[in-house]
Amino acid sequence: MKDNHSQHISQQFNAELEEIRNHLLAMGGLVEKQVNDAVTALVQADSGLAEQVRDGDRLTNQMERDIDEECVRILARRQPAASDLRLIISISKSVIDLERIGDEATKIAKRAILLSEEGESPRGYVEVRHIGEQVRKMVQEALDAFARFDVDLALSVAQYDKTVDREYKTALRELVTYMMEDPRSISRVLNVIWALRSLERIGDHARNIAELVIYLVRGTDVRHIGLEKMKQEVEGRPAS
Amino acid sequence: MKDNHSQHISQQFNAELEEIRNHLLAMGGLVEKQVNDAVTALVQADSGLAEQVRDGDRLTNQMERDIDEECVRILARRQPAASDLRLIISISKSVIDLERIGDEATKIAKRAILLSEEGESPRGYVEVRHIGEQVRKMVQEALDAFARFDVDLALSVAQYDKTVDREYKTALRELVTYMMEDPRSISRVLNVIWALRSLERIGDHARNIAELVIYLVRGTDVRHIGLEKMKQEVEGRPAS
Repeated sequence: MKDNHSQHISQQFNAELEEIRNHLLAMGGLVEKQVNDAVTALVQADSGLAEQVRDGDRLTNQMERDIDEECVRILARRQPAASDLRLIISISKSVIDLERIGDEATKIAKRAILLSEEGESPRGYVEVRHIGEQVRKMVQEALDAFARFDVDLALSVAQYDKTVDREYKTALRELVTYMMEDPRSISRVLNVIWALRSLERIGDHARNIAELVIYLVRGTDVRHIGLEKMKQEVEGRPAS
Repeated sequence: MKDNHSQHISQQFNAELEEIRNHLLAMGGLVEKQVNDAVTALVQADSGLAEQVRDGDRLTNQMERDIDEECVRILARRQPAASDLRLIISISKSVIDLERIGDEATKIAKRAILLSEEGESPRGYVEVRHIGEQVRKMVQEALDAFARFDVDLALSVAQYDKTVDREYKTALRELVTYMMEDPRSISRVLNVIWALRSLERIGDHARNIAELVIYLVRGTDVRHIGLEKMKQEVEGRPAS
């Protein structure tokens, strides 16, 4: 009887862990769409779509609250240990990054609305589209890595963040030069610069989630240790 | 014997909770100093001080890792419930905000270094000093609220964030106007704008910590509910 009972409890617990993980991935899917729509709204000057993104932020906020509550309930009732505990911790941290990605998507949407009011920026759309696609893919892959406990994919997301940072800086330099040549465009170009800044931040948050996947699977905190040591950690070689 | 034993365990547990709370407050004191030094370095063009801030970021990162490890250890060994669990959750989230405040201070320090290389910005120092002092105080008071479980002080920090956001926007508008009048200053003025942006983000993080204090003390998640409802929550009146 007792064995049946604990087996039942354990099945229930596993189902709860599976459920909360699914909620995280659903929230991730939504914010990924928010990023995509915000970028589209900006480059296509679609203020209707931008307003949808802005209004959709409420839903991601609500999802964050719900997932947080689930985490607290599981911690209080199930008192998870080892990898179950790491799963709850990774989820409760990833959800913060997802919510901030949603915030940044909203900020981009607001810039899209301003641009549709003030008139288009003369430059920067190619860069927004390009970097936007890169960070959307980072978010997607960070979530895939979470879904499949895939540390190699997580590592490649973290590595890719460097590329995004580099391209962001190049784009910024070009836009600053352009503003100097055409000062009347400053206000409009700045809207694009703020959008690029948000995209760069989204890349950082995707990287954070990727690092949490490595923590979840390997039990090692790989933040701030540098990409080389992170690679050694993932590949199981000792750090030199 | 058994009573003595559980009393001993409980005393030990309380000591652990006290210790981790002290570690959080120590980290908070350090990042508050980082914010203060970064602002001073920028307005006084002190690149030596800016370099100190930049190098000090390693210490805040290490403190974040250490506090995180303590949180996991307590969750795994002590299986806290109710207000003890909320304390651990609030600490593990506040530490993320503190680390990001440290990051933003580092970004301000890097702008100070750039400005000392490129030459001073013709405008914006008064605003950096003023908003810098406001957000430093927000960080300090959010930590005081955490130390004293003071929800009224936490509420006032959250409310104050609106003032900072408003002043940030005003400063930004003035600096954009200035850049249009003197395009050769764009690159230097942008350094100040990025610093102001970082200060505004620091205010957001201080507000997050204040919201966690309210969650810790009242057990209610007050994020995204608006200042009016937050006030009602703190004052114990039902939300209308």
